[in-house]
Amino acid sequence: MTDMAERFSSNPIITPSDIKPSADGLVVTCAFNPGAFEFDNKIGLVLRIAERNPAIDGYVESLSITEDGHIQSEIFAKNDSRVTIPDSRSFIVDGIEHLTTISHFRLAWSEDGENFTVEDKPVLQGSSTYEALGVEDTRVTQIDGTYYLTYTAVSHNGYGVGLQSTTDWKEFTKLGLIFPPFNKDAALFSEKINGKFQILHRPTGTGIGGPFIWSATSPDLIHWGNHSCIATTRPGMWDSARIGAGSAPIKTEEGWLELYHGAEVLPGGHKYRMGALLLDLDDPTKVIARSHDPIMEPTAPYEVEGFYGNVVFSNGQVVRADDVLLYYGAADSFTCGARLSIKEILNSLKS
Amino acid sequence: MTDMAERFSSNPIITPSDIKPSADGLVVTCAFNPGAFEFDNKIGLVLRIAERNPAIDGYVESLSITEDGHIQSEIFAKNDSRVTIPDSRSFIVDGIEHLTTISHFRLAWSEDGENFTVEDKPVLQGSSTYEALGVEDTRVTQIDGTYYLTYTAVSHNGYGVGLQSTTDWKEFTKLGLIFPPFNKDAALFSEKINGKFQILHRPTGTGIGGPFIWSATSPDLIHWGNHSCIATTRPGMWDSARIGAGSAPIKTEEGWLELYHGAEVLPGGHKYRMGALLLDLDDPTKVIARSHDPIMEPTAPYEVEGFYGNVVFSNGQVVRADDVLLYYGAADSFTCGARLSIKEILNSLKS
Repeated sequence: MTDMAERFSSNPIITPSDIKPSADGLVVTCAFNPGAFEFDNKIGLVLRIAERNPAIDGYVESLSITEDGHIQSEIFAKNDSRVTIPDSRSFIVDGIEHLTTISHFRLAWSEDGENFTVEDKPVLQGSSTYEALGVEDTRVTQIDGTYYLTYTAVSHNGYGVGLQSTTDWKEFTKLGLIFPPFNKDAALFSEKINGKFQILHRPTGTGIGGPFIWSATSPDLIHWGNHSCIATTRPGMWDSARIGAGSAPIKTEEGWLELYHGAEVLPGGHKYRMGALLLDLDDPTKVIARSHDPIMEPTAPYEVEGFYGNVVFSNGQVVRADDVLLYYGAADSFTCGARLSIKEILNSLKS
Repeated sequence: MTDMAERFSSNPIITPSDIKPSADGLVVTCAFNPGAFEFDNKIGLVLRIAERNPAIDGYVESLSITEDGHIQSEIFAKNDSRVTIPDSRSFIVDGIEHLTTISHFRLAWSEDGENFTVEDKPVLQGSSTYEALGVEDTRVTQIDGTYYLTYTAVSHNGYGVGLQSTTDWKEFTKLGLIFPPFNKDAALFSEKINGKFQILHRPTGTGIGGPFIWSATSPDLIHWGNHSCIATTRPGMWDSARIGAGSAPIKTEEGWLELYHGAEVLPGGHKYRMGALLLDLDDPTKVIARSHDPIMEPTAPYEVEGFYGNVVFSNGQVVRADDVLLYYGAADSFTCGARLSIKEILNSLKS
């Protein structure tokens, strides 16, 4: 057992029942995968809230946002011969994948990092062609007083990475789709390196290659190039099926410490665990060390059972001296918290 | 029959037997998918030359380039239970795709656009981690006296888009991987639009979305953003399975004319045809018109039969007044040429 996460005793700290739906009649199914940040002496979370219409026996339904901001629905009978249902997250009709829920972002605030008050209304919803199927899993990086949100923008054209900025968490500036499909898990570094902004991202496709972690650089945060693969999946290990960056890399004396998720295909589905990568301070495309064993894995009941079980997945953290306050999605359902020691993680990378 | 391509009577104009292998012992299997350009009063082609070792009965083999520039080989028995062989282009071992050939670029020169002399040696070969499995299908765009090559860089990490520049076709400058996997078919516009460079590209993945044509912009050709989907596949039509840009869009009074390829899945495999897109001059993300029927399809014997039959695929053209001299790969084997009238294509887009 290598799990080094000291879970909050109050876990899960936010559940779907804590969330007011974004519109009358909608059901909140998941409140998870939060981005995290510090603002005004508080810890803020940008929760991913997944919603659907009330379930109808024998039917599956997907929702999308129209150009004028309305929600529209498509319903199919489960016994329709065109319909296949791989798992709770999606169904397929005539080869086209549909999501069973649509996600928006909701802010939650805390003085102590453990007890959060969730706002009543969305802070950001899908609002363009590239977000017609919602927004998901944002990472928040603060650079010189501005917060940057890198998030999954989901649409009928695929899922890519959107970028928005804010200074006050009220007004947001859209900076465009910075990575086209099929890409997600983008984590921006908190400072320029060698005069350029730097980011981790995770393209996916078929054939040669796989869902690996890549790096890119930018002069202006909007345009990205110099793509370079820094870590691949490892056959036979806990991160054999897919990997992806967590949130902004943590600057330590020994290098940039990046907590990442890795998934393995098991008989019941994917199992998501967390591990660490240590990247060179001057050239973060160089991997100094990588976890052999996971630093955290789904063991608590709220991590094992849920909308999609056996998942710990983090895209949000706040650093306090040696402590990482890790906010994470459990079982694709709940928001949880845990404390990890940076020293302990770094030591584990030396063995 | 909507095919409006007047094929060269000498087609195929270049075949594998015209090509000297890049190293002793290698066999040239394909000489196809050329980029095209004008230089020094000549027409130049950047041929994609695919090579392999001599076939051994009962075995499949893939080649790759090591970091020090040597070619290494992996051989598997066809009856190995781990091996599956979807078609002539690739085989799969334990879920990992291997290519049966490795490609480099070779220059060919012509005074009349129809009779070409092929150089004896490669002009560019895979030469970095991102090209360990070769370089393929370059588009050439001339901007202010510099030629830019956007090409598919193939490696174990997937296929992305590499960029190199040259002014003399002898010395080349590498400008990095401009699009990470899984991306190809990148065609750069020949001038800035609203102060930015503009490009078409084709990401591929699984799930929601598909192999569609996207646009992006750049301040410096190296870093790209503002990704935007401009055309999707069309169910039930000749371009239902995948689409991708040809070479640099042609500036006409009515808009940017882009000749693109579309594939359809038929019982024997994919069939690749060519069509046209007309894009707004000031905002090329706006599609003014798109071919209902293909403007060219595989009909000649050299297009129907070959390494991978039923393919016409162009990534190179030279414009002379109203004529497009279209250079194209036929059946993934040969280089061919055809003449199309810009007026006739534009008229076909009005009906």
